[in-house]
Amino acid sequence: MPKQDTRSLPEFTRSDSHLSELLNYLHQIADLQVLGAIAEWDQNTAMPGGAAEIRGFQVAALQGVLHELWTNPRLASLLNELSERVQQAPFSDADRGLLREVLRAHERATKLPRNLVEEIARLQATSFEAWRSARAHNDFALFAPMLSRTIALQREVADRLGYIETRYDALLNEYEPGMTASKLDSLFTPVYETSKSLLQRIEKSGNTIDSSCLEGEFPVEQQIALCEHLLRAMGYDFSRGQMAQSPHPFTTSFGSPFDVRVTVRPLVNFLQASLMAAIHEGGHAVYEQGSAPTLARTPIAGGASLGAHESQSRLWENAIGRSEPYWKSQYASIKEAFPAQFADVDLNTFVRALNRVRPSMIRVEADEVTYNLHIIIRYELEKAMVNGDVAIETLPGLWNAKYREYLGIEPANDAEGVLQDIHWSSGFGYFPTYTLGNLYAAQIFHKLHAVFPDFDQRLASGDTFFILEWLRDQMYSFGAIYLPGELIKRVTDEPPNPQHFTRYLNTKFEKIYGLPGAQ
Amino acid sequence: MPKQDTRSLPEFTRSDSHLSELLNYLHQIADLQVLGAIAEWDQNTAMPGGAAEIRGFQVAALQGVLHELWTNPRLASLLNELSERVQQAPFSDADRGLLREVLRAHERATKLPRNLVEEIARLQATSFEAWRSARAHNDFALFAPMLSRTIALQREVADRLGYIETRYDALLNEYEPGMTASKLDSLFTPVYETSKSLLQRIEKSGNTIDSSCLEGEFPVEQQIALCEHLLRAMGYDFSRGQMAQSPHPFTTSFGSPFDVRVTVRPLVNFLQASLMAAIHEGGHAVYEQGSAPTLARTPIAGGASLGAHESQSRLWENAIGRSEPYWKSQYASIKEAFPAQFADVDLNTFVRALNRVRPSMIRVEADEVTYNLHIIIRYELEKAMVNGDVAIETLPGLWNAKYREYLGIEPANDAEGVLQDIHWSSGFGYFPTYTLGNLYAAQIFHKLHAVFPDFDQRLASGDTFFILEWLRDQMYSFGAIYLPGELIKRVTDEPPNPQHFTRYLNTKFEKIYGLPGAQ
Repeated sequence: MPKQDTRSLPEFTRSDSHLSELLNYLHQIADLQVLGAIAEWDQNTAMPGGAAEIRGFQVAALQGVLHELWTNPRLASLLNELSERVQQAPFSDADRGLLREVLRAHERATKLPRNLVEEIARLQATSFEAWRSARAHNDFALFAPMLSRTIALQREVADRLGYIETRYDALLNEYEPGMTASKLDSLFTPVYETSKSLLQRIEKSGNTIDSSCLEGEFPVEQQIALCEHLLRAMGYDFSRGQMAQSPHPFTTSFGSPFDVRVTVRPLVNFLQASLMAAIHEGGHAVYEQGSAPTLARTPIAGGASLGAHESQSRLWENAIGRSEPYWKSQYASIKEAFPAQFADVDLNTFVRALNRVRPSMIRVEADEVTYNLHIIIRYELEKAMVNGDVAIETLPGLWNAKYREYLGIEPANDAEGVLQDIHWSSGFGYFPTYTLGNLYAAQIFHKLHAVFPDFDQRLASGDTFFILEWLRDQMYSFGAIYLPGELIKRVTDEPPNPQHFTRYLNTKFEKIYGLPGAQ
Repeated sequence: MPKQDTRSLPEFTRSDSHLSELLNYLHQIADLQVLGAIAEWDQNTAMPGGAAEIRGFQVAALQGVLHELWTNPRLASLLNELSERVQQAPFSDADRGLLREVLRAHERATKLPRNLVEEIARLQATSFEAWRSARAHNDFALFAPMLSRTIALQREVADRLGYIETRYDALLNEYEPGMTASKLDSLFTPVYETSKSLLQRIEKSGNTIDSSCLEGEFPVEQQIALCEHLLRAMGYDFSRGQMAQSPHPFTTSFGSPFDVRVTVRPLVNFLQASLMAAIHEGGHAVYEQGSAPTLARTPIAGGASLGAHESQSRLWENAIGRSEPYWKSQYASIKEAFPAQFADVDLNTFVRALNRVRPSMIRVEADEVTYNLHIIIRYELEKAMVNGDVAIETLPGLWNAKYREYLGIEPANDAEGVLQDIHWSSGFGYFPTYTLGNLYAAQIFHKLHAVFPDFDQRLASGDTFFILEWLRDQMYSFGAIYLPGELIKRVTDEPPNPQHFTRYLNTKFEKIYGLPGAQ
């Protein structure tokens, strides 16, 4: 059971009649939006496959209703009225954050005509099918026309939403408010350099890690029980959630911290994938469960951005979940679940196996050293696509060249190359948030060690509640009140700074691989 | 696998531009309504309990949106325009049924002001809690004020909807279109007389049935597997559905025959309850799955009424599912699932146990002979409440007196008496549809024997597809195109006639209990 929650929570200024009216209006929108989230959860966990087409109609009907609500003139006049006053007393940070996000959603709905939004939705459906078929047939040409059309429509979206520097910024802003390509470039450059150089140093050292203990057969029932155990141990509250199974693991919440669910996907030969995915989704989930209940049923409930969200999944999965202190208290549960497989495997061997570095073609299976190189490749390519700097037919070649240059390997075909990810069947701007999440996670991890000098000892003793409690107080509570960059600054007393990640990476893997200290 | 579907399906006249516009409009409504059904399914199968209040907001928000859509002036003018033409060529029965049901929903939404609908929704929530508490504390006084208010509001609903004979007719019409109390009275009188007299004859005979084979411990996993087996055997199509668990078994569909789901609730000591409930829900489900796909996403997809629906659950559960021919092919699966418990139990003993007659206080556990007496008691009392003929504080006494008179037993307290069912915490008019379902079921069962003289032999050989196929052709296909009374007439060539049920009951139980022939 999670211990008692003693936070002081952010509050809206409900005494103001306009803000109160706005909140009631937003509650209605949020309540309806949740119906879409429920439909999506259902589609992934329960719905028979033959109902997919009709489910699409249902979701589209809801989108139509929501579009009407977001563009309602009464909403516009409320926003107008409040915008002039919200910077002054008695309004709170929560009020200001709310106004900012509602203005953004209202402007978005107003600027994007309904027929464009509907065309994008229809294109996504057919583009997804085209992508799946192209990957199955290993034929980029089957996907290229859809990708071209997606580029054209996303450029139109960017033009309509507006931007200062590049079109790509407008799309990025959809996932990571306040972020721009030029900021990303300066954050990503040191990540690229450190990752590439660390990888070369590891390869040159000739040192290797034996991860054979993670290979073999691990019955699915025990994996499920282990996932549940690990989630419970990290403070995921099952009384306000549920763990189900779906083809790809995900986390979703339903308008409040009282209903935040995760899914897992145990496969008999991939123990590491299911355990680490459970902790990863657990990170997303404790973030959502920690969002202040006072923010429920508004657009600023939940996480601050995709990057902020990914910072928590990565913090729990990698910085904590692939560390020796963490497994000091948790490894017993693994040995208990699979006594035969781990009889002769000691803690150190197990943790080293979880951290083996090896360049591979597949992003989702990448280790911490190579992961961001996968992302940076995608970021550079999609930025070029959106900004009009790439001819579509040259994309597979560009992809392969970058893999050769950044990771020293080359895809055997487009299915494991440019057709690897689903993301480009719907749009652009999502990928960089993965690396942003890694950067934020390292910065927060650094701060946690500064606040708790005995961090490793407490973690090794099996205590994770002090981490959860601190994150809840400093970060989770605030939902999307603050822009992600500002939130990171409030949590860590420093704006986003990639040096924390590069230092984390070097220190961790120099030790694991026994490399001579850097520089 | 269900065999191929070769029906000719009902069609709308989409070539008419007004009807086509109407259909598009109705699709939007139906798509949104499904989101409510998904939310309800989710609440019963996955949602953590703490999210109940917020789920209420979500459903209420959707109801508000639907109310707007049903009262839209453009809908009104389309209905006006089409009403004048729909009786003539080129319009079809499907068009006419659609118009009828849409007019009803439109008028309902127009006649019931939104604040009344919302007050009823709020009252239902608090009344449900009051009912639960009253039952737990065995104190009718805790529920009485809510019940009084429900009566008042339901009378207002009746007054606003309008009626010719009695207020109760207006409420009944919500569940069973076209039905009235006076029609019910003439249908129910022979049912009452036959049930009561048959029960007395059974009791006087001194013959008893040993049902001890159904008592004991039946592990839940095997029960679940059995439920799935029985559902599959009766033609429930799992590729267009799903079987989950919930506190009370139910069936739900999501706007089309492509997604129709059932739940079960196996309890270790109640084998009969879970198996028969699975077949019961299976009856509802094959009806929904048999509804013509051409009617999908309209208000006339699915079943014709609650009574029509219950006719199918009862037909499969009782007329078929408690018959010896049915178990001739299915009993092996029971013996296989529970070899120890049924080692020395022959088919005849098992089927007799499923049909034991015994007056009990609890409706949901009642046998076929006493079941309708439970319903008639409720029907008579709720009719009196709605028509203003009963003082609320006298209700428990009236209930007990009727049980003494009709069933010869009396509740020990109000918890097993007047507080037994959830229904009156939301309204009135639902109960009679259970008995209507039994009447329709017997009439259809009679027809099936007339159409298939070798019905029992085919059933005993394990074939149920011929039944499903005939029902699909004659009844399921048509959704709610026809009013339930007319549908029964089309299926059986006769208007609803209670003599089929009374003859079925007498014949079956005279044989089982070895009674001398009636009269």
